[in-house]
Amino acid sequence: MSASHPSVHPVDAVPPPATDAAAAAAEENPMPRGRMKDVQGMPGTPSGLALRLFQFAFSAVALSVMASTSDFPSVTAFRYLVVASSLQSIWSLSLAIVDVYAILVKRSLRNFRVATLFAVGDGITSTLIFSAACASAGITVLIGNDLNDCTENHCTRFQTATAMAFLSWFAGSPSFLFNFWTLASK
Amino acid sequence: MSASHPSVHPVDAVPPPATDAAAAAAEENPMPRGRMKDVQGMPGTPSGLALRLFQFAFSAVALSVMASTSDFPSVTAFRYLVVASSLQSIWSLSLAIVDVYAILVKRSLRNFRVATLFAVGDGITSTLIFSAACASAGITVLIGNDLNDCTENHCTRFQTATAMAFLSWFAGSPSFLFNFWTLASK
Repeated sequence: MSASHPSVHPVDAVPPPATDAAAAAAEENPMPRGRMKDVQGMPGTPSGLALRLFQFAFSAVALSVMASTSDFPSVTAFRYLVVASSLQSIWSLSLAIVDVYAILVKRSLRNFRVATLFAVGDGITSTLIFSAACASAGITVLIGNDLNDCTENHCTRFQTATAMAFLSWFAGSPSFLFNFWTLASK
Repeated sequence: MSASHPSVHPVDAVPPPATDAAAAAAEENPMPRGRMKDVQGMPGTPSGLALRLFQFAFSAVALSVMASTSDFPSVTAFRYLVVASSLQSIWSLSLAIVDVYAILVKRSLRNFRVATLFAVGDGITSTLIFSAACASAGITVLIGNDLNDCTENHCTRFQTATAMAFLSWFAGSPSFLFNFWTLASK
């Protein structure tokens, strides 16, 4: 956490005005004023934390529903979905914890190194979960609509896991785009 | 094309210095100097044109290889790949023509409306082709590795089409990221 900007000593009971954090950030990295707007959805904001929790919840549900079927290891795409959703849930949970910390101690996470790390990590995990969701969707549609073979397969569970992985991607893309935007607007 | 900035009259035979275009752009949209760097790979540059041509070539090959198999209509994901790669090739060819025009008449395409249009279009087409490639990859791997059923199917053609769709996405993502970066850094 050495990359975050301390804005107030943690034991100080008086909440500082919000401008202190921005002033401290501007002092450390001189840049034009008015660029560091605290847009909701960025890391360190309550909406950013909500996005992380949604990502974590959806990917954890996708993981558990898919892992609860007995025949998922026979299909490569379903094994890949399990791996990708585990990775997404670990990543989202870690960043949710970082967000909670940043909100509690009022530290700004909008630093170039931190934004780069978050943007790269979000880009990788959201690409992985999206590709896994698409591959599973292709196979679920093949089993359900093209082969009409749902009696022998757990179509409902496969569809639920796929839908949850897509929802996790929907919740993850804004995080990536916000971090990339923060990076680009510096 | 009313959104691009004219920097020189088309019938003028003398090539203008490159700074004229930047000066004209700065005059029309006043903004801090040093932000409008002409990064290679952005629309209107030779590298941007090369990216467009690669996207078009790969998606056209994916489309023709997939459409040349007799049994692609029986699988939803393969039909989706045909649709997505047609859309990608039409979009990339159109933007390649716009890039050629911008290079020939030396117009700058880095205008907010144009960059928004390009970023949204690139985002949509690259998401579509990536999801189609992932769905096809899931099914190709299911047929080839999980079911070992390549003797009855055109595995090689399916794999080629999938690989070409992935390559088209690889060539398309930098265009999207560059446009999004241009948008964010304004």
